[in-house]
Amino acid sequence: MEVDLKEIVDLLNNHNNFYILTHLSPDGDTLGSAYALCLALQKLNKNVKVLCNDEIPEKYSFLYKDVKLQNFKPEFIISTDVADTKLLGDKLAIYSNKVDLCIDHHVLNSKFADLWYIDPNAAATCEIIFSIINNLNVEIDKDIATCIYTGISTDTGCFRHINATSKSYRIAAEMIDHGADAFSINRLMFDTKTKAQLELERLAIEKIEFSFEGKCAMIILTKDELDKIGIKDSDTNGISSMPRGIKGVLIGITLREKEKNVFKASVRTDETIDASMICSQFGGGGHKCAAGFIIQGCIFEIKEKIQDCIAKILGGKA
Amino acid sequence: MEVDLKEIVDLLNNHNNFYILTHLSPDGDTLGSAYALCLALQKLNKNVKVLCNDEIPEKYSFLYKDVKLQNFKPEFIISTDVADTKLLGDKLAIYSNKVDLCIDHHVLNSKFADLWYIDPNAAATCEIIFSIINNLNVEIDKDIATCIYTGISTDTGCFRHINATSKSYRIAAEMIDHGADAFSINRLMFDTKTKAQLELERLAIEKIEFSFEGKCAMIILTKDELDKIGIKDSDTNGISSMPRGIKGVLIGITLREKEKNVFKASVRTDETIDASMICSQFGGGGHKCAAGFIIQGCIFEIKEKIQDCIAKILGGKA
Repeated sequence: MEVDLKEIVDLLNNHNNFYILTHLSPDGDTLGSAYALCLALQKLNKNVKVLCNDEIPEKYSFLYKDVKLQNFKPEFIISTDVADTKLLGDKLAIYSNKVDLCIDHHVLNSKFADLWYIDPNAAATCEIIFSIINNLNVEIDKDIATCIYTGISTDTGCFRHINATSKSYRIAAEMIDHGADAFSINRLMFDTKTKAQLELERLAIEKIEFSFEGKCAMIILTKDELDKIGIKDSDTNGISSMPRGIKGVLIGITLREKEKNVFKASVRTDETIDASMICSQFGGGGHKCAAGFIIQGCIFEIKEKIQDCIAKILGGKA
Repeated sequence: MEVDLKEIVDLLNNHNNFYILTHLSPDGDTLGSAYALCLALQKLNKNVKVLCNDEIPEKYSFLYKDVKLQNFKPEFIISTDVADTKLLGDKLAIYSNKVDLCIDHHVLNSKFADLWYIDPNAAATCEIIFSIINNLNVEIDKDIATCIYTGISTDTGCFRHINATSKSYRIAAEMIDHGADAFSINRLMFDTKTKAQLELERLAIEKIEFSFEGKCAMIILTKDELDKIGIKDSDTNGISSMPRGIKGVLIGITLREKEKNVFKASVRTDETIDASMICSQFGGGGHKCAAGFIIQGCIFEIKEKIQDCIAKILGGKA
């Protein structure tokens, strides 16, 4: 059942022991949302614990440095930025049927929870959390502001993606006034690359393949190549936007081999092409200009399947 | 003599024929400022012409598509975002002693004009222009909003640099509400790379040299290498932020050979180190975390001079 902000506030006020679930391969928005809400509820003397299937990458550790660690039995389970139960991951699968409230901004949210608040117009789930915290009458301090700013900035690619609205900028401005150090957050999220990430970029540039008269660019990175660079999986996401960013390219695709013959595909598109529609044909999903899917098989066949799909959109032959 | 916003508004209202001068190697802020002011004054039925030493790169052509081209004799000359007369370039040098009003945000502005308004707290000169246009009571339309947004976004590196304040975000939000297409502007300014730019990145990654225990990273690109890639000089600026962006690097330096043995140095620093101080020792200048200079000579000697300078800051040996 859909709920509104007032109902959410009542639910939060009327319970005391919360688990907040985040999605696997956690990003700045799922974590920023969860920890901002956690910090706000802890300020109201509630017991709150944030859970994630995966170990949280070290670069996000600043988000939870002031979260109190508490042990208790949950009475109300919330998920933030989780579009579907399968994104909870194996470790949190036990909560799949137990999520009381789902707070999300993905248009294709599967409405798996008892109650949900889904706003696809929000650039980030953190924008919704900002409204909830305001309605809870909790004062936004530097730590909460840091979480909310991080979610908005990361989910908008530092205000570059099509989802960033003037509201996103205004909330960001308010978070800066509440103490969020936008410069340091963005430097950490976007501008700091390891030598391995740079080496990955160099390799990716070398391996770009163009098709459809330069309107499609694809990068295929094998597990051997990634292992050779010695890069952590969570450090490879930045590469996804590279092929679409080339002048003239409308569809950019990155295929990274996670295990032998299992590829993670990231699709980025021009605003005239729906990336989530492309990915839904391969069992994946996401946003209009940024989506993904997992695909198994021989890379030559995978490539052919993807190019057949793209031929229907761009016309002509690869 | 310093003037305030009210005096600027009086000066603009009391004259009818304006030249607006921009700096050489024009960027989004000098052009955005000049064209926003030009469009606002043209709305007040003034004659206005924007001048630049260099041909304006095609990527900025959206800024002046609705500017009326007018021929007239100037009675009042303004410069926007120009820190010193030498930045006017050879073609505009004839105006060096004739600038009536200088509007700028560079802290090291040489106050070459009769009148000046310099606000180093403004992230971009466009923030000052925004205040001037508001005080002129000219309604901000989509074209003006586009210019102002572009200046703020480009001078803050799309809200990543340390100069971006909550005010920058709020003005940007207002410009979006007035019709600026932030997504398309940023895609054009930041996310669209030519194949030559990608090839330059690949080469730059290959050529990074680390010194001072990884705290300094330097990239030297010779004219031969740049010619081989066939890249336009105005397309090489993006590379300047690469070396500083590597984890652990406090000072990032890029040296590009413009003519035989003439190098343009771009220095980017961590917020704890003053880039403009480093560059001033070589006759250059700029902002705290981003500055530059031109240096002539044998590259080995140049490298040594720069490393001697850095040794004084970081201590130890290269």
